[in-house]
Amino acid sequence: MVKAAIVGATGIVGQQFIVALKNHPWIGIAALAASERSAGRSYKEAITEASSGALRWFCQEPPIEEVMEMSVQNATELDISAIDLVFSAIESDTAKILEPKFAVDKPVISTASAFRYDDDVPILIPGINSEHAKLLEVQRKSRGWKGFITPIPNCTTIGLAITLKPIYEAFGLNAVIMTSMQAMSGAGRSPGVLGLDILDNVIPFIPGEEEKTQRETQKILGDLEGSSISTARFSVSSTCTRVNVREGHTESVFVSTRKACAVEDVARAMKEYRGSSREAELPSAPKHMILVLDDPFRPQPRLDRDTDDGMATVVGRIRKDTVLENGIKYLLVSHNTKMGAAKGAVLVAELLIRDGYIS
Amino acid sequence: MVKAAIVGATGIVGQQFIVALKNHPWIGIAALAASERSAGRSYKEAITEASSGALRWFCQEPPIEEVMEMSVQNATELDISAIDLVFSAIESDTAKILEPKFAVDKPVISTASAFRYDDDVPILIPGINSEHAKLLEVQRKSRGWKGFITPIPNCTTIGLAITLKPIYEAFGLNAVIMTSMQAMSGAGRSPGVLGLDILDNVIPFIPGEEEKTQRETQKILGDLEGSSISTARFSVSSTCTRVNVREGHTESVFVSTRKACAVEDVARAMKEYRGSSREAELPSAPKHMILVLDDPFRPQPRLDRDTDDGMATVVGRIRKDTVLENGIKYLLVSHNTKMGAAKGAVLVAELLIRDGYIS
Amino acid sequence: MVKAAIVGATGIVGQQFIVALKNHPWIGIAALAASERSAGRSYKEAITEASSGALRWFCQEPPIEEVMEMSVQNATELDISAIDLVFSAIESDTAKILEPKFAVDKPVISTASAFRYDDDVPILIPGINSEHAKLLEVQRKSRGWKGFITPIPNCTTIGLAITLKPIYEAFGLNAVIMTSMQAMSGAGRSPGVLGLDILDNVIPFIPGEEEKTQRETQKILGDLEGSSISTARFSVSSTCTRVNVREGHTESVFVSTRKACAVEDVARAMKEYRGSSREAELPSAPKHMILVLDDPFRPQPRLDRDTDDGMATVVGRIRKDTVLENGIKYLLVSHNTKMGAAKGAVLVAELLIRDGYIS
Amino acid sequence: MVKAAIVGATGIVGQQFIVALKNHPWIGIAALAASERSAGRSYKEAITEASSGALRWFCQEPPIEEVMEMSVQNATELDISAIDLVFSAIESDTAKILEPKFAVDKPVISTASAFRYDDDVPILIPGINSEHAKLLEVQRKSRGWKGFITPIPNCTTIGLAITLKPIYEAFGLNAVIMTSMQAMSGAGRSPGVLGLDILDNVIPFIPGEEEKTQRETQKILGDLEGSSISTARFSVSSTCTRVNVREGHTESVFVSTRKACAVEDVARAMKEYRGSSREAELPSAPKHMILVLDDPFRPQPRLDRDTDDGMATVVGRIRKDTVLENGIKYLLVSHNTKMGAAKGAVLVAELLIRDGYIS
Repeated sequence: MVKAAIVGATGIVGQQFIVALKNHPWIGIAALAASERSAGRSYKEAITEASSGALRWFCQEPPIEEVMEMSVQNATELDISAIDLVFSAIESDTAKILEPKFAVDKPVISTASAFRYDDDVPILIPGINSEHAKLLEVQRKSRGWKGFITPIPNCTTIGLAITLKPIYEAFGLNAVIMTSMQAMSGAGRSPGVLGLDILDNVIPFIPGEEEKTQRETQKILGDLEGSSISTARFSVSSTCTRVNVREGHTESVFVSTRKACAVEDVARAMKEYRGSSREAELPSAPKHMILVLDDPFRPQPRLDRDTDDGMATVVGRIRKDTVLENGIKYLLVSHNTKMGAAKGAVLVAELLIRDGYIS
Repeated sequence: MVKAAIVGATGIVGQQFIVALKNHPWIGIAALAASERSAGRSYKEAITEASSGALRWFCQEPPIEEVMEMSVQNATELDISAIDLVFSAIESDTAKILEPKFAVDKPVISTASAFRYDDDVPILIPGINSEHAKLLEVQRKSRGWKGFITPIPNCTTIGLAITLKPIYEAFGLNAVIMTSMQAMSGAGRSPGVLGLDILDNVIPFIPGEEEKTQRETQKILGDLEGSSISTARFSVSSTCTRVNVREGHTESVFVSTRKACAVEDVARAMKEYRGSSREAELPSAPKHMILVLDDPFRPQPRLDRDTDDGMATVVGRIRKDTVLENGIKYLLVSHNTKMGAAKGAVLVAELLIRDGYIS
Repeated sequence: MVKAAIVGATGIVGQQFIVALKNHPWIGIAALAASERSAGRSYKEAITEASSGALRWFCQEPPIEEVMEMSVQNATELDISAIDLVFSAIESDTAKILEPKFAVDKPVISTASAFRYDDDVPILIPGINSEHAKLLEVQRKSRGWKGFITPIPNCTTIGLAITLKPIYEAFGLNAVIMTSMQAMSGAGRSPGVLGLDILDNVIPFIPGEEEKTQRETQKILGDLEGSSISTARFSVSSTCTRVNVREGHTESVFVSTRKACAVEDVARAMKEYRGSSREAELPSAPKHMILVLDDPFRPQPRLDRDTDDGMATVVGRIRKDTVLENGIKYLLVSHNTKMGAAKGAVLVAELLIRDGYIS
Repeated sequence: MVKAAIVGATGIVGQQFIVALKNHPWIGIAALAASERSAGRSYKEAITEASSGALRWFCQEPPIEEVMEMSVQNATELDISAIDLVFSAIESDTAKILEPKFAVDKPVISTASAFRYDDDVPILIPGINSEHAKLLEVQRKSRGWKGFITPIPNCTTIGLAITLKPIYEAFGLNAVIMTSMQAMSGAGRSPGVLGLDILDNVIPFIPGEEEKTQRETQKILGDLEGSSISTARFSVSSTCTRVNVREGHTESVFVSTRKACAVEDVARAMKEYRGSSREAELPSAPKHMILVLDDPFRPQPRLDRDTDDGMATVVGRIRKDTVLENGIKYLLVSHNTKMGAAKGAVLVAELLIRDGYIS
């Protein structure tokens, strides 16, 4: 068993890691770390609100009994000598400082954006760009680390990149235009989205989000050439909004392909897409990398986000677009706190374990 | 005073006509018509649910006392000899049959889509394409009618066409890509959108809506050449979705302009747009045809839909788009049941009264 | 295996029966019946919307493949000679006519209210008043039927009656005052609750609901004396409202007990309540008849409705009430379309199979 | 004109004071105070988010231009020598310290609960217990102040106390049982209610709220006897919950009256209730202290909260209750951030100005 530490264990993403690792066949939770305030307390104490006795556990799945009794350590003083792998669920500012300290010795898989845009850092989606993992060796060498840092993509990027991949492979891509309708859970809880603000409303701006989706998509679908990634040569433009949905990002996508293609061709390419190698056999891999639905009223976030335990990207309404050259348009739903966060990071860990990057 | 009949008076759009005509300086309600079931009853009786005594009045504004006492007539037998103008708030199927009967003698302004795509029928937005009103004379002649039929645009088209107009005039347009997040009121009440279906959800399909926005936008911004409208030569592609919002459609728009233009130029063109003539002085005209907000978190449907009593189109987040040629992107909010329905139709009536088409 | 027919199979409650019977160890679906419109079509065809191809399947759980291929029969002409049990998921008006026709020969378990208040008809909740099943023999005799009709309680009554039972047994009851905050699914889909009406709102009236909760609670907790039920001698007064929740009724309950009791006593009585006999072993029985939570912010419908697959009643905030004699107050959450509808009816079937009423 | 200072001016309640005083005939805004962070900046700067330029203005009504240019002072150093009246919109902890400092010299009207339960402090609702204002003279004397502190009730208490008053006067009261379904705005914005937590949900606990409603109702309806208030001799028990509503608290009320009374008697007593003196003529007074609706589906928070600009309490569904002695039950809607907060405090100021307590 690979012994994992979860850093940022008391936050919502940390809790999702605990759920994603429940009964995991390859990975066990060996340490929990959080801020100084939680250090020295049992996990249960650390997530119990002192004033009311309320449990600050935010996942739909119940907490795991054994984890509740584990002691929480101070993240800045965490001893990782007996640890094989660090899952980092902390904010980007702290990640900038803490993750390199861990990476000197051990692999770090992160949900933070801090290192996503560094040249020697891949943004992995198993089955989409698994071969980018080789960049981790470049990173190890260039930074003189025994470990490495590998972040997962932004939760809005991931469904977009996954659905673009088979199109890109089969027909090439000129351009991508995307409008997102994102779930509230993507904003976390501090401060998160107030009910007062989102009720009967749409919030048309999510700071930093559009830049992330544009930049990361090009990097994920780029080619690893020697010691760096040559970003994919299609442009991406997005408008990101927040809607009154709890989980599951919906995206309205318009693409221009290089080669002309019929709607059925695109649907078939998505349906038949199986990933770059044998990733479908990884323990957390979805049964369908992409599930294409024929019902014109799908995908819907509430109905489709949980497909394959939130690991599938669900697509519908593939149609001709009449504006772009070889235009195709479709909608997708992707679970932002499953495939788009902790469980997606666990899937990356599984890939790296299988391929010998983590042991 | 122009004497107006409201046909479809008991439905939600009919009720909005009653509100829009309250204290109107030029137009008085002279007759109310609905289905046979309501005929012969007072308006109040007609909208009272027999089983519970509940009043089926759906506007936020209170009902008008005098109207409550008016008698409702059977729409198929309505005598319009003493009427100057018919506002039609009926479904498209019925409109196909009833509206031409009224138009033989009298002007009909309609919220239904039945005749929007006929060659001799303009889709008027005062201040945007007021000059298309001349087509009504062509219609009169070709059909041998004393009256005419003039429908308003689909509620999703109207904000789009309004905001495109100043861009089109100043810089030309190659292409428009739009994703809408539409309010529930657009679906009406029979059956409307169930709370069960929209809670924690987005519905990615509104049958017929995308075709309407694409076709109508090109017609509205087209040129009246002789006896027909030459549709505008830019392409439109849209994806229309429903979100958990009561009133106010939000649209994410990407445009490609003919001439290069800076973000500030587009903002200025929108801010300075005053309409094609003196429409700003019409009684129901908005103070701002287009209101451009600088706050990056605007427009929001709940905060901005009621600007100028729901008659303004509110725009924000005007930015460069990096995908389209001379790309610009922005968001807009437009009130689908004010400017986009009854009150928008009243504004058309005002234009046609002022310009002598109705008297 | 007991061979069951589902009458009203295409509606939302009928669909929930299909889900509740998936992989059932004792009961198999042998026939599906609905209105004439669906007769002769496969179940899949019957629930597919012709115009759009959309599947009108409303459960979160996916539909069952074998059932999709079954043929739907006309309910009024259904041949039940090879059937052991009829589950009725039809409206009360139709139930009044159809259910007695089936009951001449076969047992009928119904979610409709049509016969709930007849003297020879029990309203069964397994584990709460299982012994009322004996009334079915009285019914058979008095009506000359081979079968019988046994309805389940109203979905708002069921959680109330379950939580009152251990209090009633241990301390007696004088009076019960209840305010409900009910989920939208309780109103069904035709017409159901419009999103327009419930957004940012509470609807303070549900026709007929208060009378049902008052009358049924007294009958369920009454004593079977000879050939009739002597209703429980405590009064019930309720106010029933609708809130913007999809599933799970919340109820705020105030009770006056006969004997004085401490908060801990009530909590213990609820926690230790195990039902009137061995019902906990029935296949669909919840692990906890009543789950009492200590967290003061619970129960919440979204977090607690699915406890034990929606079959548990979840209670919290048990406190002293200072107004009523021996006053106690608490809140409960109960899943209105699981325990409160089809799966609750399946639990009744299991009780009646075990005890030999159905074979 | 009375010169008022608003302390806590940048928060949501402070903003509501600004709106409530717009064009006020008797009271002008002479000073704005907030925390040190805002001190020295214009009001507009103080409520503008530096990072994004977004305006943190939370009222539906637009901000007032002149106020935007006023300078904000540090509340702890505010010079009130030229001020006639302080409106306090600060949290209870800070109110405990700051309000007595202001009250040494000047009248303080507060929305905080800090002093509500002191013996020499009235909780005023103009028209309900205006005569309690005399207690302010006792307070001045006992504390040696030139000014005084007078808090308004908790936002959940106010509608309850208002509707109980005519019943209490006409029939007497034994007991009151209330379940509230409260709006999110009552929780403010720091941290407020997260959209994630309230979507598809009810939160069954609001810390401290039930105690406030119970205690304050008895004090408000008590009798001023000499130098103290003798609390009303009926008991109150409540359960307070939060629902997914933006503004407007809904309350389900059950009362036991001393004298038997018919439903019509209660309705009439409420309808005819005009307040204890001439308060209906105060500038902010509602047209209807209590508006009783006959439609059984009313009151609804979204439809009724804005009655008389949020100053009326709207009642419906008055019925017999069969559990309590002389039982009556009804529902009410009260606007928690208009009558229940700043505008309610302005109404108190008007009463005290008219009666000479403030000049």
